Amino acid sequence: MTVQGISPVSLDELQEPVRARLARVDAEMRRMIEDDFPLITDVNRHLLRMRGKMLRPTLVLLADEAAGEPSPQAETLAAVIELIHLATLVHDDSVDHSTLRRGMPTINALFSHQVSVIMGDFLYSRAVVELVRFGSLDILEVLARVTNEMTIGEMRQLLAHDPLAFTEDQYDLLIRAKTASLLSGACEVGGLNAPAPQRAALARFGERLGMAFQIIDDLLDYTALSEDTGKPSGLDLREHKVTLPLIHALPRMSQEERKLVSDLMADPEPDDASIAAVVAATGRHGGLDYARERAYKLIAEADDELQALPQSPAREWLRASLGYIVERRR
Amino acid sequence: MTVQGISPVSLDELQEPVRARLARVDAEMRRMIEDDFPLITDVNRHLLRMRGKMLRPTLVLLADEAAGEPSPQAETLAAVIELIHLATLVHDDSVDHSTLRRGMPTINALFSHQVSVIMGDFLYSRAVVELVRFGSLDILEVLARVTNEMTIGEMRQLLAHDPLAFTEDQYDLLIRAKTASLLSGACEVGGLNAPAPQRAALARFGERLGMAFQIIDDLLDYTALSEDTGKPSGLDLREHKVTLPLIHALPRMSQEERKLVSDLMADPEPDDASIAAVVAATGRHGGLDYARERAYKLIAEADDELQALPQSPAREWLRASLGYIVERRR
Repeated sequence: MTVQGISPVSLDELQEPVRARLARVDAEMRRMIEDDFPLITDVNRHLLRMRGKMLRPTLVLLADEAAGEPSPQAETLAAVIELIHLATLVHDDSVDHSTLRRGMPTINALFSHQVSVIMGDFLYSRAVVELVRFGSLDILEVLARVTNEMTIGEMRQLLAHDPLAFTEDQYDLLIRAKTASLLSGACEVGGLNAPAPQRAALARFGERLGMAFQIIDDLLDYTALSEDTGKPSGLDLREHKVTLPLIHALPRMSQEERKLVSDLMADPEPDDASIAAVVAATGRHGGLDYARERAYKLIAEADDELQALPQSPAREWLRASLGYIVERRR
Repeated sequence: MTVQGISPVSLDELQEPVRARLARVDAEMRRMIEDDFPLITDVNRHLLRMRGKMLRPTLVLLADEAAGEPSPQAETLAAVIELIHLATLVHDDSVDHSTLRRGMPTINALFSHQVSVIMGDFLYSRAVVELVRFGSLDILEVLARVTNEMTIGEMRQLLAHDPLAFTEDQYDLLIRAKTASLLSGACEVGGLNAPAPQRAALARFGERLGMAFQIIDDLLDYTALSEDTGKPSGLDLREHKVTLPLIHALPRMSQEERKLVSDLMADPEPDDASIAAVVAATGRHGGLDYARERAYKLIAEADDELQALPQSPAREWLRASLGYIVERRR
């Protein structure tokens, strides 16, 4: 796809201009995780291996460069943000009883549920210690708020008892809290040294990007085929998670099609055939197209926000990151 | 018992001089928990009901008054500290799969493991939001450090694979991190407006008090009798947790007695008789007396620290709190 001339780009290409700085972020993370806690090197080593693709640190560094001269402080902040992200992954896996993440065993699977809960707490409290050491109440305000929002998002998801009553507004609230808030925080914090209007524009850029990121992620759940079966993997549907494509399609479905959906939601372990049927019905009623269009619209809005920043190579890279978001295949 | 003229006192008596302020702490807690999160009033209501006996807020307020004029800020800080305490209780119960706390169902039992993990995260991140709003990096430094220490303490406990190799030094590290750090933080933060030497004395007072608190708690596990059976309840032993009485007694035991202990540790569900046998052997070799003496010594050290504060009724109440610590029956 193309949103007005934004080309697809890989994360690898996107990270090229900040490669050396990302290596320092990595070293910072190691210091933060290992220094105080040599006791559990096994868990730590595993954590560092399972850490994300460093999308959030990449955005911090690009925002930092787009806002002025590169500052070493941004590398510390990028490490803290990835630490917070890691904490949420560890707790999410524990909450979902997931056994694999990116093909690696999760902490709860490899060690125990107990270790996951405490490790997540350790990582998050360690991040706060680093932020306090950093000394900016301003930055602390952004990241404390974001982290609190994320927990509220998680709770919303958990307490959404009737999946079929889930509205698009509720979905927006959820993805804003769950995904967009930390990505917005990453961009805002990267612009630490920028004038207030630029910083606010970076925060909004990150929020739109983050919402699009989650919508695309949810869409991939409908379009990606399982390597084993060649059928839609539909992991979210399997766990009775209702996302944008279905929210849009549901009111447009026939009585019969709606019954397929409610049967699936009532079945503790829906089979591949019923997943495939719901995926097909969602597609027929424009659910996938609608979700894709909303993501594109958010991407275009994010792009607009970048106008507030002075022209620079880093600004163009931030723009390019939008191409990564819409084109990625997990 | 008496440690040089410290009389036993109930928590109720101890809270008498700060009763009106504690009510405001309670209101602050309500505001912090409920304001942002009306969604889950069920969980919140339950949380507020299961909150502690407010020992930590009591210490914050007494330390505040011992350090100078009572400040309304101390009430907010007391609420934040109780929020952090509540977060750790919720995660502890989830980690231990506990179903009851103080006779009430735990969050994990009443709702789910998932709700506990996320609720703990919510409470802790909410506490950080409040502290940032409070605006003192100084206070943030104390409480971020304390919270991080608590997670390290929890992890130590979880990873202590060979309970019989547990030394007194390791035990000290554990109880310092797990229990004494937050109590020390409470006293230190209460002394926010005091000169640095007084504040440091309050921190040390709280640490000694906290260590004694945990030793007495561990001792009660040996001396309290189950209401059902009239035999030692020995919950810690049942869960293979080795505490000070056994650490002291173990090297003094006969071959035969040591075998009783190692059999108990190898048994996933030890029966009442083997618990009673280990409790008796621990008593015979002075484990209970030793633990009690160590607690008294810590209480006396805590008492000494109070000399750094000007004479005042609040200082005398802090002193009296030591009487509550050693005399309580859970």
